Amino acid sequence: MSTREIRIILAGPRGKMGSAARQLIANTAHFQLVAYLDRKQESETGFSDGQVQVYTDVEQCLSEVEADVFIDLTTPDAAKINLEKALDHHVRPVIGTTGFSEAEIERLRQKSEDKSLGVMIVPNFAIGAVLMMKFSQMAARYFDDVEIIERHHDRKLDAPSGTALKTANMISEVRSEKAQGHPEETETLEGARGGNVDGMPIHSVRLPGLVAHQEVVFGGSGQTLTIRHDSIDRGSFMPGVKLAVETVINAKTLIYGLEQIME
Amino acid sequence: MSTREIRIILAGPRGKMGSAARQLIANTAHFQLVAYLDRKQESETGFSDGQVQVYTDVEQCLSEVEADVFIDLTTPDAAKINLEKALDHHVRPVIGTTGFSEAEIERLRQKSEDKSLGVMIVPNFAIGAVLMMKFSQMAARYFDDVEIIERHHDRKLDAPSGTALKTANMISEVRSEKAQGHPEETETLEGARGGNVDGMPIHSVRLPGLVAHQEVVFGGSGQTLTIRHDSIDRGSFMPGVKLAVETVINAKTLIYGLEQIME
Amino acid sequence: MSTREIRIILAGPRGKMGSAARQLIANTAHFQLVAYLDRKQESETGFSDGQVQVYTDVEQCLSEVEADVFIDLTTPDAAKINLEKALDHHVRPVIGTTGFSEAEIERLRQKSEDKSLGVMIVPNFAIGAVLMMKFSQMAARYFDDVEIIERHHDRKLDAPSGTALKTANMISEVRSEKAQGHPEETETLEGARGGNVDGMPIHSVRLPGLVAHQEVVFGGSGQTLTIRHDSIDRGSFMPGVKLAVETVINAKTLIYGLEQIME
Amino acid sequence: MSTREIRIILAGPRGKMGSAARQLIANTAHFQLVAYLDRKQESETGFSDGQVQVYTDVEQCLSEVEADVFIDLTTPDAAKINLEKALDHHVRPVIGTTGFSEAEIERLRQKSEDKSLGVMIVPNFAIGAVLMMKFSQMAARYFDDVEIIERHHDRKLDAPSGTALKTANMISEVRSEKAQGHPEETETLEGARGGNVDGMPIHSVRLPGLVAHQEVVFGGSGQTLTIRHDSIDRGSFMPGVKLAVETVINAKTLIYGLEQIME
Repeated sequence: MSTREIRIILAGPRGKMGSAARQLIANTAHFQLVAYLDRKQESETGFSDGQVQVYTDVEQCLSEVEADVFIDLTTPDAAKINLEKALDHHVRPVIGTTGFSEAEIERLRQKSEDKSLGVMIVPNFAIGAVLMMKFSQMAARYFDDVEIIERHHDRKLDAPSGTALKTANMISEVRSEKAQGHPEETETLEGARGGNVDGMPIHSVRLPGLVAHQEVVFGGSGQTLTIRHDSIDRGSFMPGVKLAVETVINAKTLIYGLEQIME
Repeated sequence: MSTREIRIILAGPRGKMGSAARQLIANTAHFQLVAYLDRKQESETGFSDGQVQVYTDVEQCLSEVEADVFIDLTTPDAAKINLEKALDHHVRPVIGTTGFSEAEIERLRQKSEDKSLGVMIVPNFAIGAVLMMKFSQMAARYFDDVEIIERHHDRKLDAPSGTALKTANMISEVRSEKAQGHPEETETLEGARGGNVDGMPIHSVRLPGLVAHQEVVFGGSGQTLTIRHDSIDRGSFMPGVKLAVETVINAKTLIYGLEQIME
Repeated sequence: MSTREIRIILAGPRGKMGSAARQLIANTAHFQLVAYLDRKQESETGFSDGQVQVYTDVEQCLSEVEADVFIDLTTPDAAKINLEKALDHHVRPVIGTTGFSEAEIERLRQKSEDKSLGVMIVPNFAIGAVLMMKFSQMAARYFDDVEIIERHHDRKLDAPSGTALKTANMISEVRSEKAQGHPEETETLEGARGGNVDGMPIHSVRLPGLVAHQEVVFGGSGQTLTIRHDSIDRGSFMPGVKLAVETVINAKTLIYGLEQIME
Repeated sequence: MSTREIRIILAGPRGKMGSAARQLIANTAHFQLVAYLDRKQESETGFSDGQVQVYTDVEQCLSEVEADVFIDLTTPDAAKINLEKALDHHVRPVIGTTGFSEAEIERLRQKSEDKSLGVMIVPNFAIGAVLMMKFSQMAARYFDDVEIIERHHDRKLDAPSGTALKTANMISEVRSEKAQGHPEETETLEGARGGNVDGMPIHSVRLPGLVAHQEVVFGGSGQTLTIRHDSIDRGSFMPGVKLAVETVINAKTLIYGLEQIME
């Protein structure tokens, strides 16, 4: 981890992620905020404190401000434009949105390497969730039987959660399809054994008082191994943003997803 | 709790429950084993140690042996006969089987009271499980939203477990039917939201390395309350047998279920 | 539960508890807010919506407004005065502070009964926490061995938490002192076995990402019974306020603590 | 994983580990048991079934029997002798004991490589526990704050457990020492904050009804990540023995610990 000061432009500072990022930068000694990029004028944002300027034009921002890293927490469309502009001005982009095609990623990787300038595209900044998925995939090599129990507040519309499905898919990559449970098992109450992805049951709990939680339970003879992530607010994204910034500084290529740099 | 010595006849000493009961009696200072009742002869049971006799005839056993309590861990049919014989010989029965009709229970209660002699019929000796169900019913008065997650070894044939269904039914007695979760909730994977009893989801996990576990999770604004029971072997029935024996000694009527005497 | 409309004066509407109470009243069909009592003028509170008046004088408030219940979430000193004024105006008080002496409570109980008017003094409105303590005390009659693990955010100054100590004390009321664990147990790392209240270990976990959590684990042969409360925000107090309001309406005496009315 | 049949000699077949290994070999299609090595004569072991011979002399056993792998679950002293004899007879040893010095391991690694014959020395066969420790070390790179809660039956003499200490030491290898919790934190009950290894608290719970459990809880802003292992019987060692046998077949050097081959 570099301890030299890192100068940061933050695009999209007013959303939930943006607020978390502002707090992170303020709390990290070697991070220095040098400009905001926003759709709104400085007078409307409420950020104006006479020290950090708010820009509405990305080109002007990058021309006038010396920066090392450009954190983009805006929309997918804006992020694509900003990413390229940042590279053109020799500033390393950390992009927190999805929506890039494989072809786009390949072209951007080439551009990143041509300029010897790191790029990070990070669909999920929650380090704990990324580790949970990574560990689950690793454990699946040694345990054939696994069930996923995810728990969310009762205002969530879809079940199961995207993270649960992604975890199941990552496990499926390393294990053969397996019908779990007793072969003659019967449900006397339909749905009791949960949803099924390649033989893995997924259970979705929805209750007031919950936020976002998932446990992945592996069972083997005489033992279980459980990997659990509990998230209670957007602060959970901050360490991932920090890791991305500290990584992109020394990278010479495009990195897609935190899991690529977590060992 | 009486600390005077309690003389016990044990019927059905060779099953899993019976073995646990033998161990309990041996480990409880004020419990004294005075006879076994078994379908097999003494020479076949392997219990003969010169001190405690093995009977195969209930009438003969009760005639020859002075006892305070008759613990029956045999079959429902045998238990019904043994219960009445014990009362006739002025010995208090503790019966560990189900299968009594309401009319039978009423008649036996009358007989018990006529003789001023306690009777206990206990479908479930696991005190922890009985408390879990009792607490769940109590909590349901204050929390409208609840889900049940039960976990068992993967050789179990039925889902959900009997205890999960009984818990849901006990909760239904004290709350109005309520469809939980978001009204527009959709399952993108069928079964993810579990089985449904009066609006309460039940989720059944089956994995090697598990034994018998259940958690009942109540959710309210900003909080959850969880009641969980984990059982790993038949030893979990022993405290319930002990409680039943100590209670029946002073009772003057028939008591059905440990929940009646647990405050 | 009465479904007739209940008219409520809310004193102390701007604190964390007050905000939760405002939300509760707005979300409960048969609760009607009729006035605020605040130290600040209406123009300063930001509550003025032309419908509900903000008073700064308790006497004036109670004289001008017809109400059934007076909820007080102010300071102990203010609450003592407001409680008596409310009774004098025939409005039932629900007080959310501590600091009443036994003599004061006795005098207020007399006054409450003389007027046939309910009073509730509630040191802890979190129903889930109150149930956790109540269930723990009940379970302690059947399990001699218990440990408490409480978990809070790492900005908490004291360990263990007040709730953990209160839980231990409530358990101590119903069990004999018992040194748990193996008699020859040794700590190779000092403190590993936790703090000790009458033989019960208490363990305090402090980590960022936690809010306020406690589990009480009872162990018996072959089984454990766990009662766990997780609280993530002040919303957890709302159901307790609701219960207190609905109870005080029909009460004819003073009730101290939610545990008195939770069966 | 090779699916060709693997011929196995099992030394120490009567202990708890040995019993588990016998069951594993019987249940694995491509594992073939070809001989037992025991201190006792065949007539005393009770294993004689006319098919698999019981030897008491390692030299005679290895001379008379064609085998691929030699599993040793005896004592450290016997294991050291057996390991070398097995290599001399061109049979790959899988050793389940500790007590080898670094110099011995180095000499055996040389001998293993000279013969192009795999050797596995495995202090802990419980794959779930090995993964828990490995994941904990990985997670510690991203979370500075962590506490360990280990739970065992109340007949355990020492606290904390060896696994908890080993986990803490593995975490210490990758993080700087850090005093966790609030700097001005005070214990109003001595020991509440647990034992301390380089600033990491360890809490040891001891209750009847538990077997062997550990959770490692990492906390970061807005989230926690928990890795938990629950072990209920010796069966938990079987998958590790299987992995070791399948690995040693293709290895050309000495491998110390399952963590070396788990990715």
